[in-house]
Formats: sequence, structure tokens, C-alpha cells
Amino acid sequence: MDTKGRSSVKHRKWVRAMAMTANDAAVDDIYLTRHTGPPTRRARPDPTVWGRPTDGPISTQDLEGYEANGFLIIDELLRSEEVDRCREEVTRLRGDPELRRTDLVVLEPELSEVRSVFDVHRISDLFAKLLRSSRIADYARNILGSDVYIHQSRVNYKPQFGGAEFHWHSDFETWHAEDGMPRPRALSISIALTDNLPANGPLMIVPKSHMTFVSCPGGTPADFHRESLREKRPSVGGVDQENLKKLVDEGGIEQMIGPSGSAVMFDCNCLHGSTGNMSPYPRTNLFVVYNSVENSLREPYASAKPRPNHLASRDFIPVEDC
Amino acid sequence: MDTKGRSSVKHRKWVRAMAMTANDAAVDDIYLTRHTGPPTRRARPDPTVWGRPTDGPISTQDLEGYEANGFLIIDELLRSEEVDRCREEVTRLRGDPELRRTDLVVLEPELSEVRSVFDVHRISDLFAKLLRSSRIADYARNILGSDVYIHQSRVNYKPQFGGAEFHWHSDFETWHAEDGMPRPRALSISIALTDNLPANGPLMIVPKSHMTFVSCPGGTPADFHRESLREKRPSVGGVDQENLKKLVDEGGIEQMIGPSGSAVMFDCNCLHGSTGNMSPYPRTNLFVVYNSVENSLREPYASAKPRPNHLASRDFIPVEDC
Repeated sequence: MDTKGRSSVKHRKWVRAMAMTANDAAVDDIYLTRHTGPPTRRARPDPTVWGRPTDGPISTQDLEGYEANGFLIIDELLRSEEVDRCREEVTRLRGDPELRRTDLVVLEPELSEVRSVFDVHRISDLFAKLLRSSRIADYARNILGSDVYIHQSRVNYKPQFGGAEFHWHSDFETWHAEDGMPRPRALSISIALTDNLPANGPLMIVPKSHMTFVSCPGGTPADFHRESLREKRPSVGGVDQENLKKLVDEGGIEQMIGPSGSAVMFDCNCLHGSTGNMSPYPRTNLFVVYNSVENSLREPYASAKPRPNHLASRDFIPVEDC
Repeated sequence: MDTKGRSSVKHRKWVRAMAMTANDAAVDDIYLTRHTGPPTRRARPDPTVWGRPTDGPISTQDLEGYEANGFLIIDELLRSEEVDRCREEVTRLRGDPELRRTDLVVLEPELSEVRSVFDVHRISDLFAKLLRSSRIADYARNILGSDVYIHQSRVNYKPQFGGAEFHWHSDFETWHAEDGMPRPRALSISIALTDNLPANGPLMIVPKSHMTFVSCPGGTPADFHRESLREKRPSVGGVDQENLKKLVDEGGIEQMIGPSGSAVMFDCNCLHGSTGNMSPYPRTNLFVVYNSVENSLREPYASAKPRPNHLASRDFIPVEDC
């Protein structure tokens, strides 16, 4: 092992990270990524659960499960009437020709169909109300031990008969490098608006992988998000095969199967991905990322300029019921 | 519905099929396919189970399940030492540079890795002995109610980190059109040589779909098998979206998950497919197709010339232990 080489690479990157991190220049980057040389792996120095059982709706047992595995399934987060209303709203957003001409809409790699609509908590009253509501945000506050704001929201629509797979990655690696998120003190909640079935390209998580930070070599290309949100396997930011195998050997792979209305909450450093959707049924999920207000964004750690607001919000005001 | 139009299309094709079916020109083709016009659907006029419970190793209950659903899982067909020997043999075949230059080896669509090795019951003593043995062939004889021969054998190796998906199709549609198999009186046994996991691209079957024959429009291009064995979604021979949805609405989709050594036996007219393999583990299956000796091949029903012997054997001598 070329320890000396690595150390010097790390030093160079540290200098660069310092130069770019205007508001906390004194902190070495413990989540160094997008560097030269091979991927590195380190045990996560930060907690996964920052709150206590008494802080919110999650039981002690479920908090322990989340801490150990990095995710938690919520059996019935939305009632079926709510799911119906959300699906109607998704249909409206997907069919809006003006919206389709904006950056908020990302298309499938091989189909002209909509893959994602971003910023739904800003462009839809229904989703704004739902994603800011205590009944959902309390789960995030319980895990993150603080007030939370919405870092990103979107609808992921994976069309039937060919919706594309998405390769293994940690969201936090991207959010740290490209958005300036300091620590893995954020989480996603993916709410099933259609049944998530084994055959329609469900989310897959590598349990326990949130405990290891795997860096991704390579610089961040300019406007990289235009590629990374559309490609099946973006050129930068995915986990390498060796580390993926190691973490899957340890934790396995779990498919997040569940009926519409159920949800999965997962730590921002979980390795996850999804297979294609070959089934005749679309798979539609409402996706929200809550970040702790004590973990709000700085300058990107490994990118020349931050991603746009609809991918990484800089409105750090805590959510509250509206 | 343009019944008249369809009928005339059918008549034209029937004339063509007659002209091409040298040895049984008087039979109308009840499994007409590769025609002009839209896909057609008809209830299967032939039995699925031709044998009786007393004919072989399959219980009455399992025979009934196979008849109703079109497939049967055999929990432990091979012992773990046998699986080990088979895997060594697969490694030898995959690594053989001379074999790789022959038509017996088909590569992955996007990787230079081996996807399939055909005719393994002819090129490997181990696989010859295994696939001709009564302990495996008796299952086929029990279902098909007669002696059987091997129509095709292969190893399917779906590599880790990107082995490709394969879209929904009925094998019988191809075997009828391109190989001249008269009736759906054949079956496949897929023996897991590695664990078949939800995430490594397992076989998926549409239960009950074997009871419906869905035709595939379009002529058969010359040497079409060179495309069809390598593409994820060949241009001809896949089921159309409308009929797939109808059959999945009725029967669902089942993933064939099982440990190495287990097997799944399925009717030749089952709709099946598989997703890609994004996992770090390869998925290797040994695949054999038994056809009834009373159903041996004629001229192709909808192709100018038959496929080669390694895809559709014309050695109709019944298998026996060797």
C-alpha cells in the first residue's frame, strides 16, 4: 500500500477543501472524496441516531434497528385516500408541459418519459403541506435530534416496460462533495405511491453500509448533475466494485418491498440502488430528504460550484406544519 | 375488431406455414406466429401435464400445481458437492479460448463476458451424465408422459456488476416458429449453481401464462438467433405490452429465488424474463430443455431455415442413463 502517496494526495485535497470551505476553513475534511488515487474506506465517525426515543414517534427498538441497519420501514405512513390524492397530483405534474421545459423535470435515459420531478414541496401545495407536516417530519426530527429542513424533494416515477436501473451509491457522498453538506446527519423518506414490487425496480439497500464511508475517486465535472441525474451509472460518485462487494458480503442486499402508503426511511450514507422496471406497472415514489438545521450546507467540498437550489436547497428554515 | 382482416391474415400465413411444413402439410398451424397484423391470443388447446402421478417422482399435488401455474420448484436437486463440481466445470468451459471462438459461446450485450455456453450435454462429460440421468430426466418424463430427448442445454452465466436483463417471452413461441416444434410438450429445468437472489437477476415467471399462447407479429429475420440470444430485447419474439399486462394482471410475477442446488422446472409456454444483475455475485444456472419424443421437430413454422443443432437439436434419441 502506498501510504505515503495517499497521505500526500490527502494533504493536497485538504488544502483545496480548506480553500473552498469558506465558513469552516479550520476543519479537515473527514469525508474526503472525488480525489485522485484509489477509493478509500473509513468507519463513520458520526452518530446515526442523534435523538432519543422520547423525542418522537419511533420506538426504542426501531431506533436501535435504524442505528444498526441504516433504515426503517414504516408500514402505513399514508392512508389510501391520501395515496390517491398524491397520485393525482403526480399525474398533474408529469403532464404539465411548461414544467417539462424546466430543470425540475428529468427524463429517463432511454425513454422520453419523465423519471423525476424535483422540488415538489415548492411547486405543489399538496406536497408542501404533506412533507412539512409533523406526522412525517417528526420521524426525521426523532432520528436527527434537532429541527430539520427539506434539502430536496422529488417524485421518482419509474415507468413500466423499461424504467431504468440506478447504480449503487451513497447520497451523502454526493451531497458532501457537490452540495457542501458537512456531516451525514440527514435522511431520506421514500413514500410508495404505487406498490413497490420485486419486479418493478424497487429500492435496494445494503444494510449496515451506512457505517462506512467509501470515497469516490475522480474530480467532479462542471454541471455534473445534468449527467448524474439521468444516467444509469454516472461516471463519478458511484461506489467501486471491491468496496461494494465487501459491504454486501457483510450486510447483504435488501429489497424495499411494500404496498402503496408504506415508506422507507434511510440514512444518507446507506449504499442503495435499484434495478430496472420490466413489469407492466409503474413504480412511483414520493421522496423527501430532511437535513438537520445544525448540518446546513456550506460551500461544496469537492466541486467548483454548488448544485442548484432544487437539488440542494439553501433555505435552511425549519419545516413546520402549514 | 377487424375480424375479417385478421382472418385473412391468418389464412395467408396458414398457406405459408403449409408450404414450409414439409412433413405435415395438412395441419393448420394452431400456434400461428410471426405474422402481419397485431398480436393474437388464444387459450392453449394442448395439455400441460401429459403423465400421471404414478409415472415418476412428482407428487399429485405438485403435478396439480405445475398444471395450474406452469412451474414447479425442486428444493434440492443437486447436493452441494455436485454443485461444486458443476461450478468447476463451468469455470473450465468459460475459460476455454477455443470454445470461445465457436458459436456455442454467446457474450453479454454490454460486457465482453460470457453470457451463455450452449450444448453443454455434448461438450462436457459431467453435464452429459447429469442431464441424461434418470434422477433429472424422470421429472420431465413425468410431466410430458413419454420418453424425452434434450432439445437444448446451456449454462447461463449472468455476471456480477451489470449482467443484462432479458425481456419477457415464451420459449415455445420461438421453438415453434424457428425450430419447428409442433406443440408445447416440452419443458425447461433451470438448476441453480449459485444462489439465485432477489438482487442478482433471478428468473421471473408469470404464473398461469402458459395457458395462453400470444403470437408475435413480424417476420423472422435471417440468422435471427445471432441477435436474439445476445440482445436484451430482441426485435421479434417478445410478448407485446398489452398482452403482458393482461397476463400479469391475472397471474402476477414470481421471482424464482433459491439456493444453489435447487431448481425450477417450467412449461415451455410460460412467459418469463429476468432483470439485470447489479449485485456483486454472479448468477450461474445450468439449463436443460427436454422435449417429448412424440413432439420432435419438423421444419420451422415461421422461418426460412432451422436454427443450428446446438440451439435446437435434431437428435431425437431418448436420453438414458450413461
